[in-house]
Amino acid sequence: MTITDVFESYKSDLLRVETQIQEGLKSRAVLIGQVGNYLLGGGKRIRPLLLMISANLCGNPGPQAVNMAAMVEFIHTASLLHDDVVDDAKMRRGKDAANNIWGNQATVLIGDFLYSKALHDSVKLENQAVLESISFATQTMSEGEVLQLLKTGDPDITEEEYMEIIEAKTAALISSACRIGAVLGAMPREKQEALAGYGMDIGRAFQLVDDTLDYTAREDKLGKALGKDLGEGKLTLPLIHLIGNSAPEEAAKIRNIIQEQSQDREDLEYILSLMRERRSAEYAVGRAESFIERAKGRLSVFPASPHKDALYAVADYVIEREM
Amino acid sequence: MTITDVFESYKSDLLRVETQIQEGLKSRAVLIGQVGNYLLGGGKRIRPLLLMISANLCGNPGPQAVNMAAMVEFIHTASLLHDDVVDDAKMRRGKDAANNIWGNQATVLIGDFLYSKALHDSVKLENQAVLESISFATQTMSEGEVLQLLKTGDPDITEEEYMEIIEAKTAALISSACRIGAVLGAMPREKQEALAGYGMDIGRAFQLVDDTLDYTAREDKLGKALGKDLGEGKLTLPLIHLIGNSAPEEAAKIRNIIQEQSQDREDLEYILSLMRERRSAEYAVGRAESFIERAKGRLSVFPASPHKDALYAVADYVIEREM
Repeated sequence: MTITDVFESYKSDLLRVETQIQEGLKSRAVLIGQVGNYLLGGGKRIRPLLLMISANLCGNPGPQAVNMAAMVEFIHTASLLHDDVVDDAKMRRGKDAANNIWGNQATVLIGDFLYSKALHDSVKLENQAVLESISFATQTMSEGEVLQLLKTGDPDITEEEYMEIIEAKTAALISSACRIGAVLGAMPREKQEALAGYGMDIGRAFQLVDDTLDYTAREDKLGKALGKDLGEGKLTLPLIHLIGNSAPEEAAKIRNIIQEQSQDREDLEYILSLMRERRSAEYAVGRAESFIERAKGRLSVFPASPHKDALYAVADYVIEREM
Repeated sequence: MTITDVFESYKSDLLRVETQIQEGLKSRAVLIGQVGNYLLGGGKRIRPLLLMISANLCGNPGPQAVNMAAMVEFIHTASLLHDDVVDDAKMRRGKDAANNIWGNQATVLIGDFLYSKALHDSVKLENQAVLESISFATQTMSEGEVLQLLKTGDPDITEEEYMEIIEAKTAALISSACRIGAVLGAMPREKQEALAGYGMDIGRAFQLVDDTLDYTAREDKLGKALGKDLGEGKLTLPLIHLIGNSAPEEAAKIRNIIQEQSQDREDLEYILSLMRERRSAEYAVGRAESFIERAKGRLSVFPASPHKDALYAVADYVIEREM
């Protein structure tokens, strides 16, 4: 089963989610719909997909699951909008970043609208455990973003600190999407935790792969410039690995490059060639692979089913995309 | 009873709120506490005060009320942080604006943290009606901010549109603070609505007075420059009134001033002197006064009590401060 097969299998569920997303963007303020549509248009819908697979696996892919799948995508989109302001991004998903078109003002405020709309609509479901999960994930994400900011440009960041950041900013919401499917299916605690754990692990792997692609992808496929994280002072695992596996004079040169206001092509080439030599990308991907294996293992509490196969396929996709 | 007496009467309640605020600012990310403390330090705590008076009036000023009073202040503070980024503010409450010290990045992200923390902590209370109220208010606020942005620099904004904006961006949260006191006291619907309506009306008056002070206050008392709204293209009631009560050539000049990139002292003086002549500030304050009267009238469903007196005193304070 490939990821294309998976999207095909859940096509009707995802169409229901799209309708819900459109519904949610209706507001007195027309700009909300415009910006929302622009940004929401480019998404792969991985989080809604995971929520719907999880809900199907747990026997309740009803309107509440569809609603929460849309809300999870709203929260994800809000975080992208605010990220773009924070990073002063030029491109997002191969298009101009929203802040580049509508300015920081609209981008901040529409992000706020999407966050608050998602939480308000979640409240309407009157399901305490769902609310607990989604509001905790949202808080964790924002804490992760602040932690990341605090570590910006810090060449002494440890692998442990890096993991803490990606768990908070990326994995928590994916985990919540998977958990909500189980909660809506009224699964026992053990199965809720299994799906939440699966989501955490593929979330970790997802960000690890993303961060590695920033050094290894082809720029036309990535939809943004290579070495973007380096330029923004975001120290991700490939670079952390490289610093830890460099001779003192190499490490000193890398630290200098990190602390420069803007790196030139030569700086990036130096780092890329050293990364190839020290196999830093392979190290980061290896970590991602072990999370994917663990994620799959967590599903052993569920009997074999097409939905379980779909979760396996998503896990494989996370690691295989564009590498 | 003056506002000072009111703050004195609810001193112990407000101290409990302060403790809760400090508790809420604890995070793995130390910056959150720093920025939070800096900004939260300058607030008058009008919203927590209203929630605690309302909770006392309705017989349940317990830990849940204290918790929600802190959360309402978090949401208010988050909106100030994002406002400062949106307005590119230099000053706030007589101090440097947060974005001027920590940059837009931290300001956006810590605003997100305060929002999401407040909603997550509210979820923990497991009170559906409280959650409904606070999450609706938060969504309404963000919608109001977008509406305001859409009307920036538009000299054709109507009084009705202006009222819609201030109801959403300011009055909704104050109304929610008052309603939550009634909900926690398990009051019948009629009394919940009375307090929510009281909050809406004093919220409307509060913003009307604020917007008028921007043209009439002494700069040293205002803690920011006079005519700030004009400079930001925010058309508030005094200016809307003035445009509607000007001769064609005056109106044309005012429109030109509004559309300039930056107004000089002479532009401001022109508008101020015309406002004095046409009594535009008096008009806006008159509107505020009528909301204050209506707010007080709504409390008739409650028997006389010191808590009701306190709500009257807060209403009077809203209109009397610094005018």
